[in-house]
Amino acid sequence: MTKQFEPETPCVVIDSEIMERNILAMANTAQQAGLNLRPHAKTHKMPWIARKQISAGAIGITVAKVSEAEVMADHGIDDIFIAYPLIAPGKIQRALALNKRIRLIVGCDSMEGARRLAEAALRAGQTLEVRLEVDTGLRRTGVPYEQAVETAVQIHSMEGLSLTGIFTFRGAMLAGKPTMNLAAAGAEEGRLMVELGESIRAAGVQIADISVGSTPTSAFASEVKGITEIRPGTYVYQDRMQAAFGVCGLDDCAGSVRVTVVSRPSPDLAVIDGGSKTFATDVQPNAAPLHLVGFGHVVGLEDAVFERMSEEHGMLRLGPLAQNSGLQVGDVLHIIPNHICSTVNLHNTVIFLRDGRSEVEPVLARGKLE
Amino acid sequence: MTKQFEPETPCVVIDSEIMERNILAMANTAQQAGLNLRPHAKTHKMPWIARKQISAGAIGITVAKVSEAEVMADHGIDDIFIAYPLIAPGKIQRALALNKRIRLIVGCDSMEGARRLAEAALRAGQTLEVRLEVDTGLRRTGVPYEQAVETAVQIHSMEGLSLTGIFTFRGAMLAGKPTMNLAAAGAEEGRLMVELGESIRAAGVQIADISVGSTPTSAFASEVKGITEIRPGTYVYQDRMQAAFGVCGLDDCAGSVRVTVVSRPSPDLAVIDGGSKTFATDVQPNAAPLHLVGFGHVVGLEDAVFERMSEEHGMLRLGPLAQNSGLQVGDVLHIIPNHICSTVNLHNTVIFLRDGRSEVEPVLARGKLE
Repeated sequence: MTKQFEPETPCVVIDSEIMERNILAMANTAQQAGLNLRPHAKTHKMPWIARKQISAGAIGITVAKVSEAEVMADHGIDDIFIAYPLIAPGKIQRALALNKRIRLIVGCDSMEGARRLAEAALRAGQTLEVRLEVDTGLRRTGVPYEQAVETAVQIHSMEGLSLTGIFTFRGAMLAGKPTMNLAAAGAEEGRLMVELGESIRAAGVQIADISVGSTPTSAFASEVKGITEIRPGTYVYQDRMQAAFGVCGLDDCAGSVRVTVVSRPSPDLAVIDGGSKTFATDVQPNAAPLHLVGFGHVVGLEDAVFERMSEEHGMLRLGPLAQNSGLQVGDVLHIIPNHICSTVNLHNTVIFLRDGRSEVEPVLARGKLE
Repeated sequence: MTKQFEPETPCVVIDSEIMERNILAMANTAQQAGLNLRPHAKTHKMPWIARKQISAGAIGITVAKVSEAEVMADHGIDDIFIAYPLIAPGKIQRALALNKRIRLIVGCDSMEGARRLAEAALRAGQTLEVRLEVDTGLRRTGVPYEQAVETAVQIHSMEGLSLTGIFTFRGAMLAGKPTMNLAAAGAEEGRLMVELGESIRAAGVQIADISVGSTPTSAFASEVKGITEIRPGTYVYQDRMQAAFGVCGLDDCAGSVRVTVVSRPSPDLAVIDGGSKTFATDVQPNAAPLHLVGFGHVVGLEDAVFERMSEEHGMLRLGPLAQNSGLQVGDVLHIIPNHICSTVNLHNTVIFLRDGRSEVEPVLARGKLE
């Protein structure tokens, strides 16, 4: 991988073959379960990868921001779910503009949000397709579970809106707490949403879509009868957190950060040319302590721990094996980051490798925060 | 500040008057101490602000990457110190190209690094001005303190290099540990470097520059006789970490992140439209626990704690005062981030406010990682 191509470090490199294998595997999971797959584009932020996911069977994509949806629509994606409450008037106007060009679905988790969407849609002479977000334990956005039926009934009655589904996100969680038991987490997530969907239908609102699922829980939630859609994101590249969950092996991680050792001030310390402006600093809530797991997996140096970062420096603590490896100033390393999504988000471009050839691709929807 | 201008959220807004006051205050500190000021541009990453700092008295700027130096040189900055070991051959070539256009100084912290610089400089028929980086306790880059004299003597003897100074970075540290006692930290930092400079001169190497200082320690290190230069960065905007140090008040923080409340699922929870792709997640090593201090100061809601983040969501835990404030979906808040440098680094643009007028400026050197 490093022989034929020597890009300047630090940079994110993606193994295209592994990425395509990951895309196909998740498409297969969805197809076998008879579900729609609507991948979250937050991980790659690139329209051409979204198109690959759709070619492999995805129905469309998910994004978090209107600005991301605009980038994706401008590059040919025509079925987009903004899984986020749209509140600011300017953003709702931009969503209505998109709604004329593509199939757009928007998230909603409050009556205030629904009123804003409905009024703007009516003024524009449009109908907005809406899904109600439900909190199933993460305490993030989402109407509280016990208020969801009532809210669905109210939104259903509003002119300008067409309530077609419900959705949730909670990652790997069981009975309100983070868990490593993905099978139980996915089953609970699926059951909660299917039961809620039945209650909403019993109240007279014939929703079509019950959408769940993150990369760790998608395979298990999809086994619950009644679920119609999964929205995993990270699977396209996979990362060290997913490997820690057992979702994949480290060999399934398509992405790594290529770095150079710039200093070897002592036998047990190697400093690399990437820190918190190159690697995500967020760590899994239920992960082992940082001084044991570090900020990423150092490929080929099993007892090196990526222990500390400042903005442009990464400090690797070397165990006996790494100390005896002959690691020296100028050596190039590859590090599989804990969280690939927020790592890619720091980079303007990503390098794709296939058969020794490389292509530099812009992370087009990076920094599209509004 | 929010009346005349309503940009879409989330975005970084900078109060230009506070920024200019901060620029002048640090210039004054340096001038009073008779020192050179060479601000680190990592915080703003904008050439026009670097020019403001130079107009106020700075001798030049500091950067971490060749690519940042290129952006700054392309926009008129002609005295740049790359305070980072240059190791990769491609980067050394780019430094040599810059060296023909501007006064360039490069960092070095190993004999391997020095050899690479010297060989490339000789081949190019150039002399590179070099400073030796010294570790004074942070265990990052920097030759170990006790090896610095010997290394300086060796580098001094190498053709192609002109060793003109020594430098260190360690933030707020005392006797090898993080500290809140900035006066003692700065005094120790200054003393260590001045004593080392005397030893190096006694060994026959007549270095001119002894460069120290971060934003928290600059004022104190500059009081040590023999120091010639300070390199603070964060001071240009200041931030909540610096306020926690007592370096400034929250009123001196020029930067905040403008966000919108997108969900109010329960009385004690408000969700804002910015998470770890909008705010830096790095927390000060010796800070109070996260659940007490949070990821930033929520202006005007004193008992709101910015407790959790996912990529595009920020969760504020509201105390009794905030719960009674009438905060609702659609409200706009301003949050002073813990660390402004890595926060700005997430944004393609920053909005500058003055007298109600606004200007959007690109963060030109953002993402310049190589």
